[in-house]
Amino acid sequence: SVNPDLASERQTASFCVEKLTALLDGGAEQTRIRRAVVEAIESDPVFSRENQYFQTQNERYEAAVMKAVHLQKKMHEMGWTENGPEYKYIYRALSGDVAFLLHRVFMRSISVLGSDKQIAKWIPLATQHKLIGSYAQTELGHGTYLQGLETTAVFDTATQEFILNTPKISAMKWWPGDMGRSATHTVVFAQLYIHGKCYGIHPFIVQIRSLQDHSLCPGITAGDIGPKMNFEHIDNGYLLLKNVRIPRENMLSKFCEVRPDGTYVRQGSQKINYFTMTTVRISLISDEVLTPLMKACTIAIRYSVVRRQSKLRPGEQEAKILDYQTQQEKLLSQLAAAYAFHFINDYLQELFNRGYREIQNKNFDMLPELHALSSGFKAVITQHCTAGVEICLRACGGHGYSLLSGLPSLYTKILASCIYEGENTILLLQTARFLIKCFMAASSGQPVPPSVTYLASVKHSKCPAKNKLDFLSPDIYTEAYQHVAVRLISNTAAKLQDLVQSGVKKHDAWNQCTVQLVQAAKAHCHYIAVKNFAETVEKLEAKAGIQKIMKHLCDLFALHGIFSNTGAFLHDGYTSAAQMDMATASYLDLLAVIRKDAVPLVDAFDFTDKSLNSALGSYDGQVYQRLYEWAQRAPTNQMSPAYERYLKPLLHNTLSKL
Amino acid sequence: SVNPDLASERQTASFCVEKLTALLDGGAEQTRIRRAVVEAIESDPVFSRENQYFQTQNERYEAAVMKAVHLQKKMHEMGWTENGPEYKYIYRALSGDVAFLLHRVFMRSISVLGSDKQIAKWIPLATQHKLIGSYAQTELGHGTYLQGLETTAVFDTATQEFILNTPKISAMKWWPGDMGRSATHTVVFAQLYIHGKCYGIHPFIVQIRSLQDHSLCPGITAGDIGPKMNFEHIDNGYLLLKNVRIPRENMLSKFCEVRPDGTYVRQGSQKINYFTMTTVRISLISDEVLTPLMKACTIAIRYSVVRRQSKLRPGEQEAKILDYQTQQEKLLSQLAAAYAFHFINDYLQELFNRGYREIQNKNFDMLPELHALSSGFKAVITQHCTAGVEICLRACGGHGYSLLSGLPSLYTKILASCIYEGENTILLLQTARFLIKCFMAASSGQPVPPSVTYLASVKHSKCPAKNKLDFLSPDIYTEAYQHVAVRLISNTAAKLQDLVQSGVKKHDAWNQCTVQLVQAAKAHCHYIAVKNFAETVEKLEAKAGIQKIMKHLCDLFALHGIFSNTGAFLHDGYTSAAQMDMATASYLDLLAVIRKDAVPLVDAFDFTDKSLNSALGSYDGQVYQRLYEWAQRAPTNQMSPAYERYLKPLLHNTLSKL
Repeated sequence: SVNPDLASERQTASFCVEKLTALLDGGAEQTRIRRAVVEAIESDPVFSRENQYFQTQNERYEAAVMKAVHLQKKMHEMGWTENGPEYKYIYRALSGDVAFLLHRVFMRSISVLGSDKQIAKWIPLATQHKLIGSYAQTELGHGTYLQGLETTAVFDTATQEFILNTPKISAMKWWPGDMGRSATHTVVFAQLYIHGKCYGIHPFIVQIRSLQDHSLCPGITAGDIGPKMNFEHIDNGYLLLKNVRIPRENMLSKFCEVRPDGTYVRQGSQKINYFTMTTVRISLISDEVLTPLMKACTIAIRYSVVRRQSKLRPGEQEAKILDYQTQQEKLLSQLAAAYAFHFINDYLQELFNRGYREIQNKNFDMLPELHALSSGFKAVITQHCTAGVEICLRACGGHGYSLLSGLPSLYTKILASCIYEGENTILLLQTARFLIKCFMAASSGQPVPPSVTYLASVKHSKCPAKNKLDFLSPDIYTEAYQHVAVRLISNTAAKLQDLVQSGVKKHDAWNQCTVQLVQAAKAHCHYIAVKNFAETVEKLEAKAGIQKIMKHLCDLFALHGIFSNTGAFLHDGYTSAAQMDMATASYLDLLAVIRKDAVPLVDAFDFTDKSLNSALGSYDGQVYQRLYEWAQRAPTNQMSPAYERYLKPLLHNTLSKL
Repeated sequence: SVNPDLASERQTASFCVEKLTALLDGGAEQTRIRRAVVEAIESDPVFSRENQYFQTQNERYEAAVMKAVHLQKKMHEMGWTENGPEYKYIYRALSGDVAFLLHRVFMRSISVLGSDKQIAKWIPLATQHKLIGSYAQTELGHGTYLQGLETTAVFDTATQEFILNTPKISAMKWWPGDMGRSATHTVVFAQLYIHGKCYGIHPFIVQIRSLQDHSLCPGITAGDIGPKMNFEHIDNGYLLLKNVRIPRENMLSKFCEVRPDGTYVRQGSQKINYFTMTTVRISLISDEVLTPLMKACTIAIRYSVVRRQSKLRPGEQEAKILDYQTQQEKLLSQLAAAYAFHFINDYLQELFNRGYREIQNKNFDMLPELHALSSGFKAVITQHCTAGVEICLRACGGHGYSLLSGLPSLYTKILASCIYEGENTILLLQTARFLIKCFMAASSGQPVPPSVTYLASVKHSKCPAKNKLDFLSPDIYTEAYQHVAVRLISNTAAKLQDLVQSGVKKHDAWNQCTVQLVQAAKAHCHYIAVKNFAETVEKLEAKAGIQKIMKHLCDLFALHGIFSNTGAFLHDGYTSAAQMDMATASYLDLLAVIRKDAVPLVDAFDFTDKSLNSALGSYDGQVYQRLYEWAQRAPTNQMSPAYERYLKPLLHNTLSKL
């Protein structure tokens, strides 16, 4: 039975939930396929996550390996293939709680970086799981800056082998997933040396464990890097190489080859590699970043209509906490962001598909723009969604802090997305570098990529809004965002130029502007996200109430950004104080409007109870019963030896006899 | 041997580190006493936290109980008493990793709420640990709003007993520390009923476990609430009462008594109770909030001078990451906040000591101000420090994400401080209510408490700064903060009044202003923190370089707040855009200045390696060696059964035979 406080929220939906779900999925047929996958996975007890919050790191790892192995059978049974329409839903259905994710990266790196011969040799072995692959790039002392990697691969012409070494402790490979305990092979990135000359970083296939008994190969030291904030199910590992010899054929050689005599030959264009990095950044947004925020919103919003606390008006029943303006402000702005980022993700996916087609035709013109967009949006979305999940957690008070709410795990996992695949600050600075270049080009009348043509256009110097309703006009707020982005980019470009002209060296000048460059890059992405949301809403069908509620969310997303960052809009007087007060009034009014549809809006994400794995967020809203039942199963409710050992002697008063 | 990259940072300190440590401790003698306690605790292997990051919740609980019992012996051995000068350092030395913290709350609640007879009976038993006490207030469905608690205590005149019941699941006690597995007694808060009439919430002493065999008493259901985001060492518990009878004498009766015939008598003033709540909020700031932020700063800043990444200038060695402006902006602003909040904590402690003396003289005039300050600062400091620890964690990249860095545990623990002892948003609204009242009073010329007299004073309507150096003048920035606080409070008061005058009911009007009321309360606290820091610096001796570096930190704290919240200062034109650019320039300039003293400034916090328990933050900066050694000891580096069970069949190719 559904908690009546939750049930009543569903009766007044202003739109058709099922239609919105289909929109999010990209069509009703996709919804059907996704639900079939979820059903097949969730009905299989091997994939259960029921006891996850009670398990140790070791138990989590075991379960993830078991699931990965079972998944192969399941796919076979169900007729699912890696190229089939079901594949993209499997990971979501498993909530990512499965091993061997790096095996796919191992395979992809061979496909992209390997010669045809290498692909022909290794891909079938990997596909049939005759080996387990990993990907060893990051070192203990080196992350984002790949040129700084210290692992060496010295070519020995006598034996036609590469000799791999970890010259010092900071060169140890550190973090690669699946490497701590599972992998038999890995792709190692190392500095290539031939006849004493360094040719830079290259990828090498190295076997690290025996295929017979899984013991470490000669010269290999490897293990698990220990406990982390999350990812208990993954055996992130370390790897030390001591005179490990591999045949010449194991250097991945699509782009560079070492001939038997030691001649180094570079062939083809490596540009496709950069494209791979950018697509990885975009591909993680959906599964690793948006899904957790959507789950957190679902949990926190359902809980907030079931939880009652204090009285809004004297004499009444205690109020649902979602009826408090402060709670609405916390949660509904996250909900709006989840939708905004869903739509920008669609936009980015489309752009990257187009980019991929161009690149296959040997046209690399789109690369700089794609790199800037993928870097900037990876950073902005991971940062925003991580903060959003934390807000959802805190908005649930004490119960949010229990692992049983599901929120702590969502938070500790999504937090990692701000760090991996490029640390966010570094990525934003890459976007900023592109923006400054484009701004300079646009200023001197040169052509620039489509997403930055706005840098050349000068519009109003004052916001034309006359009353608070004007701030519900997408033209008004989109232009305000655009104005801020242009101002921050142009001001920072000017500061850079001033510094250099006053004699500061170029690199020092850049460093002295980085705090502001980061702001500029964020403003650019924020503008594009707002613009894209507004354009998406424009194109929606008006029927079934979908367009109307999406318009509200778009307005809220835009106005929340203005309200949270008023200084950017007020700075040069583009927005006056009076206009800011209008925007604030519209923003706060919207909260009460969207609050009415809050539950239907999270229902549309269509998460099953099993996938939420939360005592607070289930569809029926039976929060307290579930917390109590669940707690009773905790390992901490088994008899503790602490009583006999410590408490009994204490209570029976040995201490007072001291 | 100290890592040379770290050693070099200490050679150029602009001030005497030992003198700053003494200042933070409140005198060199205090430093001596603290170090003696730390030395005694850390040299005792029973108190070791060496394996903490590898332990399960059960193991953490066991260890905490063991430590709590051992601590009693230790205190006896060392001659430490609860009233001695050493006592306040013990908890810090243990990093809070000890059981029975609620035993002290149990004792304090009896001391404050009990009659002399009750105190005479229970306090000696508790002091001698003949029982273990807990404190059961929060319920599954009820937190901050105490009037909503549902547990009942019905007086039975026939037997002279109270009959306690949990009428429904949401009334179950939930969260009390030490109750899940340890406590034998607890103070239960319940709605008192006599002859069918409800007299509201009262405290009752209830035995829950046998003193002989620790089994649950009749009518009691109790256990552990399961895994949480942190506090694995604490057995937060649940408690269900079913017709539990306790003698009439067990209702704590300093302020209210039930006579044998059922007559209810209220005696004395309960105001002291509110004072207790406010002092708890202040007392947690130092141990639970400032210490974690100071530890996080120590870890992140030491790591940031050891970690090298990318090149600042071409041709040079990779740069220390603390040399990047963005890293300085992240970390040094947290460092400045740690100092700012240390000094505001001193201010609050002093104020509360004065308040306590007044109250002992039956003068309760200070109570509203103390309540407003304790609520506001509890919220502002916990929020700021929690965000600060997260920033430190993320600023350490991947290594910050490892539990071995110590940062994840600091974060997951400090996060709880935003929720317990009053959820932050609710507390800020209490402060706001006080501010609005005072503003109305001040506006009509009535006297107001000292901390809010500024609400009546009108100063400049424009910031008088003429160049960027002016923003290093405490008068300039303190006045700017004051102006913002007055503006936000007065604007919100006006909005409230407008709403009510336009016919909105008072309670609804309040709710419609809460988002802005929260902002106003924060602005008030921020202003007082800045003013207090500036006044503290003013009073410091100029010698040994202390005053100079503290002045820099004060400036940074103030300018960081302006830079992060420019809209508040720009809104009504108090600060012009040109002035904001000056403030920003001063802010960014300061980063480079303070960066030179960053390591000495965290050294002054004087944390031992054992208390940091971090592979990244040790005094010698041997980061990589320690990460590697530590990881090898992880339980995940013991042989896993996953190979035999799952990997071997997979690799030996059962799958491909499917």
